[in-house]
Amino acid sequence: MGSSSKRKKKSAGFIHVQPPEKIDYSGFAFDITHRDPESQARIGQLKTPHGTIETPNYIFCGTKASVKNVMPHVMKDLQTDIILANTYHCMIQPGADLVEKMGGLHKFTGWDGPMMTDSGGFQIFSMGHGSVADEIKGRNRSNSKSVLKITEEGAKFKSYKDGRMIMLTPERSMEIQRQLGADLIYQFDECTAFHVDRRYTEDSMHRSHRWGDRSLKAFDEQHDGTQGLYGIIQGGVYEDLRAQSCAWVEDRPFFGTAVGGSLGGSEEQMREVVSWCMNDLKKERPVHLLGIGRIRDVFEFVRMGIDTFDCVSPTRIARHGWALVKGAPDERINIRNARFREDAEPLFPSLDNPASRDFSKAYIHHLFKAGEMLGMQLLAMHNVATINLLMREIRQAIKDGTLDELEKEWLPS
Amino acid sequence: MGSSSKRKKKSAGFIHVQPPEKIDYSGFAFDITHRDPESQARIGQLKTPHGTIETPNYIFCGTKASVKNVMPHVMKDLQTDIILANTYHCMIQPGADLVEKMGGLHKFTGWDGPMMTDSGGFQIFSMGHGSVADEIKGRNRSNSKSVLKITEEGAKFKSYKDGRMIMLTPERSMEIQRQLGADLIYQFDECTAFHVDRRYTEDSMHRSHRWGDRSLKAFDEQHDGTQGLYGIIQGGVYEDLRAQSCAWVEDRPFFGTAVGGSLGGSEEQMREVVSWCMNDLKKERPVHLLGIGRIRDVFEFVRMGIDTFDCVSPTRIARHGWALVKGAPDERINIRNARFREDAEPLFPSLDNPASRDFSKAYIHHLFKAGEMLGMQLLAMHNVATINLLMREIRQAIKDGTLDELEKEWLPS
Repeated sequence: MGSSSKRKKKSAGFIHVQPPEKIDYSGFAFDITHRDPESQARIGQLKTPHGTIETPNYIFCGTKASVKNVMPHVMKDLQTDIILANTYHCMIQPGADLVEKMGGLHKFTGWDGPMMTDSGGFQIFSMGHGSVADEIKGRNRSNSKSVLKITEEGAKFKSYKDGRMIMLTPERSMEIQRQLGADLIYQFDECTAFHVDRRYTEDSMHRSHRWGDRSLKAFDEQHDGTQGLYGIIQGGVYEDLRAQSCAWVEDRPFFGTAVGGSLGGSEEQMREVVSWCMNDLKKERPVHLLGIGRIRDVFEFVRMGIDTFDCVSPTRIARHGWALVKGAPDERINIRNARFREDAEPLFPSLDNPASRDFSKAYIHHLFKAGEMLGMQLLAMHNVATINLLMREIRQAIKDGTLDELEKEWLPS
Repeated sequence: MGSSSKRKKKSAGFIHVQPPEKIDYSGFAFDITHRDPESQARIGQLKTPHGTIETPNYIFCGTKASVKNVMPHVMKDLQTDIILANTYHCMIQPGADLVEKMGGLHKFTGWDGPMMTDSGGFQIFSMGHGSVADEIKGRNRSNSKSVLKITEEGAKFKSYKDGRMIMLTPERSMEIQRQLGADLIYQFDECTAFHVDRRYTEDSMHRSHRWGDRSLKAFDEQHDGTQGLYGIIQGGVYEDLRAQSCAWVEDRPFFGTAVGGSLGGSEEQMREVVSWCMNDLKKERPVHLLGIGRIRDVFEFVRMGIDTFDCVSPTRIARHGWALVKGAPDERINIRNARFREDAEPLFPSLDNPASRDFSKAYIHHLFKAGEMLGMQLLAMHNVATINLLMREIRQAIKDGTLDELEKEWLPS
């Protein structure tokens, strides 16, 4: 934390710092070019030093500095605009110092387009309390094997790699994200678990706000114009807390806004929680929805004004034989299913990439049956291409006012 | 076996058939365009209905109808001339009937270049007696878990997939290889184990010869001009048996010749056994060396006149972190080694493919440390590209009379 820690004030055990009033994001821009008259959906261009992201868009997860099974130039061929890496995983392996020494994540991974990193807090808490998806989506599988002590200072956790105790603070998170060098980065926050009560949620939200101010201050001190900082809305499933957190974020000089924390225990609650946030936000910053990304979610939340999504799902489900398919029941098919054994049709002949176009479902079925890793590679490519098609079609449909019709094509049931 | 079984004669329990005197291979050709004056090394062009293979060359293994981790169009980008699939694996999963229904291996896998299949016997015996590599290279790890009854008729074995008993005969092997549809196919044979005695080796050789005659007859009956059949030299580590087997192969209308069976218990013995065969062969057919393919072996046996090699090694060792590197001790480096942690250099910057050129060793090291599958993909690509470079350089060196100098560049120690 170095020098900045000396300027912190403690009151009632809290660490307060004065965040900067203004931060210069002149290397960045977010231009909203079209609005859907029927909903809050919008089309925009999010400009970063490594290129422009057409929004709404999807950010693919390269958790450990690699999108699983897909080379960076192939991600580009699949018309991907942006990928993310997880700070927590990267700081443990290979370590932020090494990535910095290698010239940052762009140079290290060979991905030269826009990139995002989270704050690291997200994974720490999810690993303490259950999987990330469990948390956001309200599945209660709490455990505390690998973690965790949360203090005002930050979070202490045990490295999954070597058991070493690691302290992550807002200042350290900013420093590490600077070393990793992504274009879009995040304030340090706690992603609260679904099963915690209102009192914990409220206390945690205020702590995340204080962490946010410390993040802003540390960010401002290191800022060289190459990174844009996102603030995160907390408040769990409580409308008034979400309103407070929205106001806090809007009042701070963040470049972008993210909807974070627990989104509740059901799809209805998730919709409600996100809608509270989206109705409260006034400033025209890009808004990211953390960790949510089924096709049905994308349609849902694009209508509320969400600009970017991220989820491990497209590449993760690929490893289990799932192919995302426009118009399929439940968005997807499992290629291992016996009905594909003799299916000579490709997954999506008109989609311009080898995985969707050049191999029969029978062949990919065979690869999975035979345990051939090429199957995972092909489905990962196909799923990325399909999500990128989805986002292109959604942007066009917002322009054309045909979002409902498009949704029926993708999700007929 | 159908109709052909009625025309077999049994004597002393042996099934003898009259092989055809001549088979029309007009869709194929093997033109030797240059000979090394210093050795038996030669440059040639092996023409098949799916394209021409420049020889000497290397045939990459796509055991289960997939080169592990590498898409067919990427194999082509890596300047690969030919790949093989294993009859035994393909007949079990997905099954030869399915592959035929899908239009054959070329259409099924998306590889439109030349292709080879083995007879199926090879894997059956190796799975009965230990690994294929164990057998050829004389490591004795005999076991008989999955197999096996060898009779005059053929070999009976248990499917590794579902335990079903399967009978493979010369006629059935020809039928399956016709269904699979590779350009270059093999007679049915027994790959004898290293630890069997002379008596067994001799009896087995004669049986393989009878199987070869049955293969030829069955092949001739089904032949439509799209496949070239290879005969296999047996005889284990016995010079007189190898001579007999060479004479038998040369006397039959095979398109190509393969050196098969046990090659002994040491590198010296392997050299000796192959050299016996290569000195005995007179006809100018393409000669394939089954299952051998380290870089040092390639230099060794190219000098004896071997035209094609196959080995799983380039893609298999890739999965364990090994990168083939020109000039490295023992031909290769292990990217997991700590000395590559901060190595910013690519594996081979001047080799024109992303895996060798665009990623630092530090990044690939990280991928393996983090358990990211992309690492295996990159090393598989790099190893394929490296072997294809090796073969291009060997062909050029034979032309230039600089094979010794080239070998020193690749294998300095």
